[in-house]
Amino acid sequence: MAEPNILSCDALLTRVETIFTRAGVRRESAEAVARVIVAGERDNCKSHGIYRIEGCLRVLAAGKVVPDAVPELHDAGKSVIEVDAKGGFSNPAFYTARAALAARARETGLAALVIRDCLHFSALWHDVEALAEDGLASLSMCPSYSFVAPAGGKEPLLGTNPLAFGWPRKGAHPYVFDFATSVAARGEIELHRRAGKPIPEGWAVDRDGKPTTDPEAALDGAMLTFGGHKGSAISTMVELLSGAMLGEFMSKEALDFMGGTDLLPRHGALVIALDPQVFAARSGRDPIAEGEKLLTAIGAQGARLPSERRFAARDRALRDGITLSDTELAQLDRFEAMGLAAVAA
Amino acid sequence: MAEPNILSCDALLTRVETIFTRAGVRRESAEAVARVIVAGERDNCKSHGIYRIEGCLRVLAAGKVVPDAVPELHDAGKSVIEVDAKGGFSNPAFYTARAALAARARETGLAALVIRDCLHFSALWHDVEALAEDGLASLSMCPSYSFVAPAGGKEPLLGTNPLAFGWPRKGAHPYVFDFATSVAARGEIELHRRAGKPIPEGWAVDRDGKPTTDPEAALDGAMLTFGGHKGSAISTMVELLSGAMLGEFMSKEALDFMGGTDLLPRHGALVIALDPQVFAARSGRDPIAEGEKLLTAIGAQGARLPSERRFAARDRALRDGITLSDTELAQLDRFEAMGLAAVAA
Repeated sequence: MAEPNILSCDALLTRVETIFTRAGVRRESAEAVARVIVAGERDNCKSHGIYRIEGCLRVLAAGKVVPDAVPELHDAGKSVIEVDAKGGFSNPAFYTARAALAARARETGLAALVIRDCLHFSALWHDVEALAEDGLASLSMCPSYSFVAPAGGKEPLLGTNPLAFGWPRKGAHPYVFDFATSVAARGEIELHRRAGKPIPEGWAVDRDGKPTTDPEAALDGAMLTFGGHKGSAISTMVELLSGAMLGEFMSKEALDFMGGTDLLPRHGALVIALDPQVFAARSGRDPIAEGEKLLTAIGAQGARLPSERRFAARDRALRDGITLSDTELAQLDRFEAMGLAAVAA
Repeated sequence: MAEPNILSCDALLTRVETIFTRAGVRRESAEAVARVIVAGERDNCKSHGIYRIEGCLRVLAAGKVVPDAVPELHDAGKSVIEVDAKGGFSNPAFYTARAALAARARETGLAALVIRDCLHFSALWHDVEALAEDGLASLSMCPSYSFVAPAGGKEPLLGTNPLAFGWPRKGAHPYVFDFATSVAARGEIELHRRAGKPIPEGWAVDRDGKPTTDPEAALDGAMLTFGGHKGSAISTMVELLSGAMLGEFMSKEALDFMGGTDLLPRHGALVIALDPQVFAARSGRDPIAEGEKLLTAIGAQGARLPSERRFAARDRALRDGITLSDTELAQLDRFEAMGLAAVAA
């Protein structure tokens, strides 16, 4: 007997792609967006899975993302390649530029990709994993909405500013980390508020800059970065490199532009790709084999590598399919049938 | 009346340079090493000031650094420039390559510098500040000695792995952070041990991987990274990018090579330089002016920028000179008079 709640990754991909094309998104962009959403669901990253569809549809309904934007590649032959998302989603822009970025990194050792003017909702591990498949190490970062205060401050000037890194491995999933530089996600504070529970110490300050465990006061104040002043410094670096340096929005400007936090942020993104083979060449060593010495030693002592749980979920999903709840399936049906009207209601 | 304990930065520079040339270090290298040591003292970074002279002399006495090494620049016209320190100090190698790195970054947008086979004792802010003077943003990182366990582990596989970032500002000291990715310095644990005081929770685990506040157990076990699993991920990235990727020692190999922790580590280093003007060009915005919006807003709410205290100390030292204790002055006299015999004794 077929189990209606279990879908293959491909079947789910087709469904999500259809939702986006029916919502007016051009086919190539719908495919790119659906691919990262299904990847999130497949990896059991529920916060970046099909849960994101509604948010994307709302931005489309609000006219704050350009559904038929065709990403425009600008490659002047330098080490910096640019792709203008033209107000569309970041994902098709990244895929438009991926091959050029990888080729330039292989040719010169390292190259950077500037993504301009994009609607950004996806995790950054997609980009660094794609580049790891190409044999490249990479860093990816972007601003977001300014909810986070710098260490010692009280005003939210920084975004949750994610930072991701990928490193290729032979015969194994790549080494990948991808995390917010805030200590927690804003959604987690909201969940505590709804449950009437205090938040852990160190998550946030109130509007006077005093440490608070009251989720209301935290939402009214500012979140904090992970790792104290060191995390705050890294978050500031993300603002400077992927906001100011690109001439794109920093987190405060992104929030002002959208006029509220109901919609996903629009800003730029920075990806730096490095070819370990070029960097190691003169040493005569195999950089990937050298990296394995460390990575296997981390695993051998029982410590978990970042993304390990995600990769295990992926392996299960590719083998057994993705299980969705009745509610989730009903929502997919509704989005497919109603398009943007489903969120305008 | 002249105050004998106060030296101008230039006077101290001459004294330190003399100590190194008398210890057999070639003039250009002695000058580069003295420059960073005096900069540390000037900025009131006592742990990277004249305190470091003794360690450097000990490595020289042990024959573990090549005193007359002439750094060799390798520039194949790619985005990766290499300099082989040839077993000498890292500082002259960096200065040998600085102009080529800056020129390549301006030309292509970003460039990387690989420093090979160097004795590394200095803070990384020197490099990123020098590049900020050249109008460039930069990242600098290197492995060290493996004293730090990955999150969830117990074996020291990671170094204290410093990470530094610099961003140029107009008419102000640059935005600079430079920190160990370990939660504390190993020396701080040693100081607690000598004082018979427990270390704070979260600094270390014992050899069984259990959290400990006992400094003896900590030194016998492993230190921890800042920021939990996120800091551990960043430290792992530093090992991969500035160790494995370059085909140079990672922290464990560096420790094995020196055969103990008494001497400074030998390994490689990675510097990535980015030209904000190239990255921002198509936006029509001034990236430095955009960055100021964030940096001045951080200061305006009373939060401190990283390095602020260091820059204040610098301004004072340049105006009033550097004050040394009698003991420090006596040590300089001894090093100058006795050369390597001062540490061999």
